Amino acid sequence: MIHASAQIGHNVTFGENVVIEENVVIGNNVTIGHNVIIKKDTRIGDFVQIGELTVLGKPTSSNKKMARKPGKTLDPLVIADHVTIGCNSVIYRHVKLESGVFVGDLTSIREKVTVGEDSIVGRNAIVETNTRIGKRVTIQTGCYITADMIIEDEVFIGPCVSSSNDKYMGMGNFKHQGPVIKRGAKIGNNATLLPAVTIGENAIVGAGSVITKDVPANKTVVGNPGRIKE
Amino acid sequence: MIHASAQIGHNVTFGENVVIEENVVIGNNVTIGHNVIIKKDTRIGDFVQIGELTVLGKPTSSNKKMARKPGKTLDPLVIADHVTIGCNSVIYRHVKLESGVFVGDLTSIREKVTVGEDSIVGRNAIVETNTRIGKRVTIQTGCYITADMIIEDEVFIGPCVSSSNDKYMGMGNFKHQGPVIKRGAKIGNNATLLPAVTIGENAIVGAGSVITKDVPANKTVVGNPGRIKE
Amino acid sequence: MIHASAQIGHNVTFGENVVIEENVVIGNNVTIGHNVIIKKDTRIGDFVQIGELTVLGKPTSSNKKMARKPGKTLDPLVIADHVTIGCNSVIYRHVKLESGVFVGDLTSIREKVTVGEDSIVGRNAIVETNTRIGKRVTIQTGCYITADMIIEDEVFIGPCVSSSNDKYMGMGNFKHQGPVIKRGAKIGNNATLLPAVTIGENAIVGAGSVITKDVPANKTVVGNPGRIKE
Repeated sequence: MIHASAQIGHNVTFGENVVIEENVVIGNNVTIGHNVIIKKDTRIGDFVQIGELTVLGKPTSSNKKMARKPGKTLDPLVIADHVTIGCNSVIYRHVKLESGVFVGDLTSIREKVTVGEDSIVGRNAIVETNTRIGKRVTIQTGCYITADMIIEDEVFIGPCVSSSNDKYMGMGNFKHQGPVIKRGAKIGNNATLLPAVTIGENAIVGAGSVITKDVPANKTVVGNPGRIKE
Repeated sequence: MIHASAQIGHNVTFGENVVIEENVVIGNNVTIGHNVIIKKDTRIGDFVQIGELTVLGKPTSSNKKMARKPGKTLDPLVIADHVTIGCNSVIYRHVKLESGVFVGDLTSIREKVTVGEDSIVGRNAIVETNTRIGKRVTIQTGCYITADMIIEDEVFIGPCVSSSNDKYMGMGNFKHQGPVIKRGAKIGNNATLLPAVTIGENAIVGAGSVITKDVPANKTVVGNPGRIKE
Repeated sequence: MIHASAQIGHNVTFGENVVIEENVVIGNNVTIGHNVIIKKDTRIGDFVQIGELTVLGKPTSSNKKMARKPGKTLDPLVIADHVTIGCNSVIYRHVKLESGVFVGDLTSIREKVTVGEDSIVGRNAIVETNTRIGKRVTIQTGCYITADMIIEDEVFIGPCVSSSNDKYMGMGNFKHQGPVIKRGAKIGNNATLLPAVTIGENAIVGAGSVITKDVPANKTVVGNPGRIKE
C-alpha cells in the first residue's frame, strides 16, 4: 500500500507487502525490501537500501511509569544518501542518519538521535533517545547506547558494551547524563560504562571492564572497577 | 486476514496485512499496526496499542536437546486494558500482561509469565518461561530475565542485566531456580546474577557486579564477585 | 507471492503474506509462518518449521567503513531436516543448519556459518560470519558469537556471553581470530571472552568472568581477570 501523497524517485524497487504512509519522500535508486513499513513524513535520499521487515519513522510511545513523555511534534526521520539498513529493525521519528551510515538487522534507534557520516550501528544494537553519534564511528553488534550520550568521531565500541545514564536508578526526576566518549577512544566488548563518565581521546577501555570514573586521554583502563594500566 | 471467528470491539484500527487467527477476542479502542500477527485464542482488552510486525500468542516449540517440552494445553495470551506493545516483538501463549504494561520493540516474553500492573519490559529485553514480574517494575532495555525467576513490586533492573537459573549449566535435569529480587531492589546495568540468589528488599547491586550469593536487604553490593559496600 | 521457479514438496503449509523468491527448494511436511520471506536459492529439507516474520537467505551488505566486503558468490542457505526456526529472525546466505537444529526468535546468523546436528542457537543470539558450531551445542539466549570462532561439540554457552575477535579494535587490517571453545566446555552467563583465547575441553568459565588468556582443560576459571579456582 503506497499512499497517494508519497513522492517516489526514479528507479525505486519495492518488495512485496510494502506499506508507505502519507507524505513520505523517497529519492532515486532506492531498494526497499519485502514487508517494509515506512511511516508518515519519512524522508529518504538516493541509493538507500532498506532490508525486509523493517519499520522506519515510528512515533514515540510510553506508559504511566515512564519519565519521558512522547514529544507532540517530533521531526520526521531523515535518511541521507547511500545509507544501508538491515532487516527487522525499528527506527523512530526525529532521527537523522547521515550519508553512508550502515544500520544492522534487529537494531533500533530512538528519537532525537543523529548518526554521523559513514558510521556503523551494528546488528541488535539499541540506541536510546537524545544521543549524538559522530562520523566514522563503529558501534558493534549488541551494544546498548543509552540516552543523553555523546560519542565523538572515530570512536570504536566493541560488541555488547553497556552504558547507563541514571545514577539514581529510577528513584526520581534527577537529570540523566550518559557517558561521553571522546574522539578515537576504543571500548572493549561487554564493558560497562556508568552514568556521566568521560572516556578521554584515544583512551582504551579493556573488555569486560566496569568504568566508574573518568578515563584520561590516551590511557588504558581494565578491571572491575576499572584501573589505569601503567 | 481476519478469521471469521474473531470478536472485534468498537473503534478498532487495523494496519495493512494484519493476520488474526481463530477465536481471537479484541476489545474497544484498540490500535493494531501493520503486519501484526495475532495467533489463535489471544484475548486483548480495551485501549491496547500493538506496534508493527509483532507476533502475539506464539505457541512453544523445542528440539530434542531442550529440557522443557512444550505444554500440550497452554492457556491463551491475555492482554489487559491500556497495554502498549512495540514493534517486531514476540509474545507467547500463556502470558498475562496486566493493565498499563509497556512492552518495547524487539522484545520477547515466553509462556507462563505474568507482568504486573504498569510495569515496563524494555526494548530488546527477553523474558523466559515461568517467571513472575510484579507491579510498577522497570526492566530496562536489553535485560535477560531467566526462567523461574521472581521479581517483586517496584524493582528497577538497569539495562543489559543478565540472570541465570541452571548452576549445572546443562549437565542434567536438576531443578532450575532463577534469582529472586525483592521489593524495591535496584540492579545496575550489565550486572550478572547467578542462579537462585536472592536480592533483598531495597538492596542495590552496582553496575557490572557479579552476584554469587544473597544480598541482604538495604545493602549495596559491588564488584566481581560482589561484596557489600560498607 | 511464490515465485514460479520454486520447487515445493508435499504437505507444505504456508501462512499469509509469505514471499518465496526464485529457485527456492522446499521439502515435505514443512510449516511456514505468516509474513516469512525466503530469499532466492534457499534450500529447505523435510519437517522444517519456520516462525512468523523471519527472513531466510539474506545476502550480505556493507558500507565503506567495513573491513569485510560481501562475497560475490555466496552459496545458498541450506536448512536440513527437522530444523525449527523462531519468529523475527534473520539468517543469511551461505549458512548450513544441520538436522535437528533449533534457532530461537529475534536471532541472526551471518554467512559462512555451520551449525551442527541438534544444536540450539537461542533467542536473540547473534552469530557472526565464518564461525563453526559443532553438534549438540547449546548457545543460550542473548549470546554474541563473534566471527572466526570455533565451538566444538557439546559445548554449553550460558545466556548473554560475549566474545570478540579483534584485539586491535578496528585499528587496521590485522588478522581476526575469535575464541576456540573445546568439546564439552561450559561458559557461565555474561562472561566475556577476549580474542583468540582457547577454552579447554570440559573447562568451566564462571558467570561474569573476563577471560584474557587460555583456560586449561578441566579447570574452572572465575573473576576479572579470570583466574583458575583451585
